[in-house]
Amino acid sequence: MKPRIAVIGVGRMGSALVSAFLGQGHGVDIWNRTRAKCEPLAAKGARIAETVRDAAAAADIVVVNVNDYAASDALLRKEEVTRALSGKLLVQLTSGSPSQAREQATWARRNDIAYLDGAIMGTPDFIGTPGCTILYAGPSELFERHKPVFLALGGNPQYVGSDVGHASALDSALLVYMWGALFGALQGAAICEAEGVSLEALTGYVKATTPVVDGAVADLFARIRQRRFGADEQTLATMEIHAGALQHVLAICDERGIPRGVPAAFDQLFQKAILAGDGQADFAALHRFMRPA
Amino acid sequence: MKPRIAVIGVGRMGSALVSAFLGQGHGVDIWNRTRAKCEPLAAKGARIAETVRDAAAAADIVVVNVNDYAASDALLRKEEVTRALSGKLLVQLTSGSPSQAREQATWARRNDIAYLDGAIMGTPDFIGTPGCTILYAGPSELFERHKPVFLALGGNPQYVGSDVGHASALDSALLVYMWGALFGALQGAAICEAEGVSLEALTGYVKATTPVVDGAVADLFARIRQRRFGADEQTLATMEIHAGALQHVLAICDERGIPRGVPAAFDQLFQKAILAGDGQADFAALHRFMRPA
Repeated sequence: MKPRIAVIGVGRMGSALVSAFLGQGHGVDIWNRTRAKCEPLAAKGARIAETVRDAAAAADIVVVNVNDYAASDALLRKEEVTRALSGKLLVQLTSGSPSQAREQATWARRNDIAYLDGAIMGTPDFIGTPGCTILYAGPSELFERHKPVFLALGGNPQYVGSDVGHASALDSALLVYMWGALFGALQGAAICEAEGVSLEALTGYVKATTPVVDGAVADLFARIRQRRFGADEQTLATMEIHAGALQHVLAICDERGIPRGVPAAFDQLFQKAILAGDGQADFAALHRFMRPA
Repeated sequence: MKPRIAVIGVGRMGSALVSAFLGQGHGVDIWNRTRAKCEPLAAKGARIAETVRDAAAAADIVVVNVNDYAASDALLRKEEVTRALSGKLLVQLTSGSPSQAREQATWARRNDIAYLDGAIMGTPDFIGTPGCTILYAGPSELFERHKPVFLALGGNPQYVGSDVGHASALDSALLVYMWGALFGALQGAAICEAEGVSLEALTGYVKATTPVVDGAVADLFARIRQRRFGADEQTLATMEIHAGALQHVLAICDERGIPRGVPAAFDQLFQKAILAGDGQADFAALHRFMRPA
């Protein structure tokens, strides 16, 4: 028999989780702060629980997807709920930081609750599809044992290690990489519009540049892994050449009244590295300055 | 007969330009502040000029590639040099800002010098190769007439328009897009190392995420062009969801002593947009805040 699942929090993402579980034949108990959001799922076959405790008591596995860990704590850390969770698997899919995940794992251990911390690498419409990647961290045997359940949520459940903080650490790292590209593109678009270059032209050149950028990112990771920070034949540009070219970007922003916060933050790191004597080094030498002082 | 070319400035990039011209059978006159850098090129057949004036006087086309426009001005804006340039084509490949290019074009016009402003989208080792992209801006007939010469420098000379500032505007826009991805990757690597996630794992996940990121960048450009800023079915996450996830990144940076300048600059833009009422809008709504206040 398929395990019965409780889903706490049925916003847009939680609702997608419930639909996916129902679609794979799981019995699902649901609870949400605003009960109205439960109704469409009840029509699909989910059972609305009166309390979080009731949902947890009825299910074998409890999946939580609420706004943040504070909201989750307010729901779960009541004696009757904690008791209902005891001996069961709690899968925390709420977004948080690694230290929040680790703190939660400690609390779970103290209360005899099996615990996995997950990070959903996608949007609600991806849930249940073959490409849907969800990262899971915690004891590997828990992940392996319950993998059929996780497969109900999408074709690509990934176990990222026993350190329960690693799902959200990777989530943050991948998001900040995505934001980098997005904010860079945003700034580039603002520059082109201010200078009268058509966005059609920019779009075309960006498409042509993307493989170069992807290669540069791959090279950066390789250099960091190998601690190969000095300039060599593969170096695209030294730190000083990067910093010099960035001054033109800052000049355009100042002339055109474009906010310069993002490129100025880049410049601060370049200047720090140059001041420390890394002017002739590869971009990857910045890695040295991304650590505790 | 192939036009004779003067190259002013034979650092790493200028030397690559000279070698490419020589390789295509052009006669080349060279000048450099430090004469020693000319010697290896002289051995390949370039003629060392005693002065910038001599180089300009001997050639049909004068290509400049020095540190910055200030250095270029100091060399070119002397009466005897300006006179030697008169009636010839000056191709400025020195990195600069659009306004510097426009100012230079005005000076050139006043002195009867034909002028194109270029931006080299690559490193010296790419010069002369099929994939070498150089952007040219200025009068289209100048570009068309001299295209065979530009083809000597690489297979992909691109005319980007009659506004002479557009080569460096596009250069800056494409660079800031590249820096975005690179600084995002750098921050992500720092987060993973601080949290104990292996960089091998990060590299693998970044590779898997790259198509998603590229798609998000393309979607951003499309939305900006269409002024489609509200959230819709294609929206990956609302501004508030972006900003919420970014708080976890900032928390990790603060806990681990990682510089938070770059993500904090992202956050400032998110908060500005949320404060202005765009919390439920698409990421692209940030475009509204990238313009003069």
